[in-house]
Amino acid sequence: MKGSNQGDTLHAGRREAAIHVGVRLHVEADLAAGAEVPLDPAQAHYLRNVMRRAPGDAVRLFNGRHGEWQATIAALGKGKGAAAVSEQTRPQAPEPDLWLLAAPIKRTAIDFVAAKATELGVSAIQPVFTRRTAVARVNVERMRANMIEASEQCERLSVPEARAAARLDKVLDAWPRGRRLLFCDETRVGRPIAEALAAERAKMPEPWAILIGPEGGFVPEELERIRAVPAVVPVSLGARLLRADTAALAALAVWQAVMCGE
Amino acid sequence: MKGSNQGDTLHAGRREAAIHVGVRLHVEADLAAGAEVPLDPAQAHYLRNVMRRAPGDAVRLFNGRHGEWQATIAALGKGKGAAAVSEQTRPQAPEPDLWLLAAPIKRTAIDFVAAKATELGVSAIQPVFTRRTAVARVNVERMRANMIEASEQCERLSVPEARAAARLDKVLDAWPRGRRLLFCDETRVGRPIAEALAAERAKMPEPWAILIGPEGGFVPEELERIRAVPAVVPVSLGARLLRADTAALAALAVWQAVMCGE
Repeated sequence: MKGSNQGDTLHAGRREAAIHVGVRLHVEADLAAGAEVPLDPAQAHYLRNVMRRAPGDAVRLFNGRHGEWQATIAALGKGKGAAAVSEQTRPQAPEPDLWLLAAPIKRTAIDFVAAKATELGVSAIQPVFTRRTAVARVNVERMRANMIEASEQCERLSVPEARAAARLDKVLDAWPRGRRLLFCDETRVGRPIAEALAAERAKMPEPWAILIGPEGGFVPEELERIRAVPAVVPVSLGARLLRADTAALAALAVWQAVMCGE
Repeated sequence: MKGSNQGDTLHAGRREAAIHVGVRLHVEADLAAGAEVPLDPAQAHYLRNVMRRAPGDAVRLFNGRHGEWQATIAALGKGKGAAAVSEQTRPQAPEPDLWLLAAPIKRTAIDFVAAKATELGVSAIQPVFTRRTAVARVNVERMRANMIEASEQCERLSVPEARAAARLDKVLDAWPRGRRLLFCDETRVGRPIAEALAAERAKMPEPWAILIGPEGGFVPEELERIRAVPAVVPVSLGARLLRADTAALAALAVWQAVMCGE
């Protein structure tokens, strides 16, 4: 999963998905019947050169605020374009308030986790630096691009917030009162995740966050700091030693299934 | 995730994991105190050139039958080596009987799914060709290599079985009596997955399988055939449209958490 190939893969996957369900784009502009919405250079390139679309062809648009709308390509040139919005296909709907706090491992791993977490319904992704995190910086713009693409493909009505990477202790110092913290504890002293979440389920729709450690685990001081968060729920993901990216996706999938599963 | 880079990534991840938990290798030979076990050329290369190990250094070995054993590198040359087995570190333990049936999408996607599914505890992976599967063949040897590497890293005591790809209808025609089939139904008529599995939980340790469709879904005749399997349990993975690889990992994570979560 090197940078450039990761991009190719996403592109190929994006095209594949669009063939089945039609082109769907995230825009910043307001959406309403009759609106004409500008398309950015990357979107124009994608429609023209990857999907071979032309003016008059259909696209669906969403902006995270006004639901999803049917639109028609009104203009499409090199590096620019516009879409004419016709009618709403889905109203905006509430989504769970669920953050993912994950330690970046390698340059592309956080992009991969961010895209998959978007599919699995997170509302924000917060990369956190821990004492055993080897990666020194995170390209938040590229992470956000991956999240937009994933949102477009998975029929979400929103793009999760892509937060700038921050030190774990700073994030915990500013922890919002009442936001529950599902701590996936590789020391395996937590309760089994499904059992722990089932016991918390009655309290929905409280805001939540999921915290996944770096590959080498947390140092003792970090473990102590995490366990001191008032709303922490330490859980075990089972007997197998999951890689950090797998652990993040497993925890998100189980959270969604248990907390929002009907 | 092109082929070669996927390999590099796994290699890098493997080295990273081994730094934290020590080198762990799957072998075919019997394991017992005092045994001398041959290392294959790839293992010798990995120990010598990637991990910079030498005779006298420690490794852990497992074969899926005799638990995990501490061993010492007894000989290490170019393309060959041997390890001297000393004492058992973990006895062989029962594992869930859980197959994954997944339609291959792109050349490397099945390798990725196979590695992640190994971490998430499947006992066998069966690639299935469906009417909307564009991929015409699966490299089972490469898939198995990914599964061995994943098993070594995630502390499993076994390597899941890597089955040759087969047509879905043939696999269903030979469906073993009593093996339950968790059908992740993208038409979303199934019950929510956590709820459906909780209702089945009392029947453990029955054998199970999880079936994930191709990106474009199943054709109506296939849906009919799947729903006719006596032990089928159709479930929904939620409101979002998951990519096939994400759906496979989500279903496995939820199955493990609900069925084996304590």
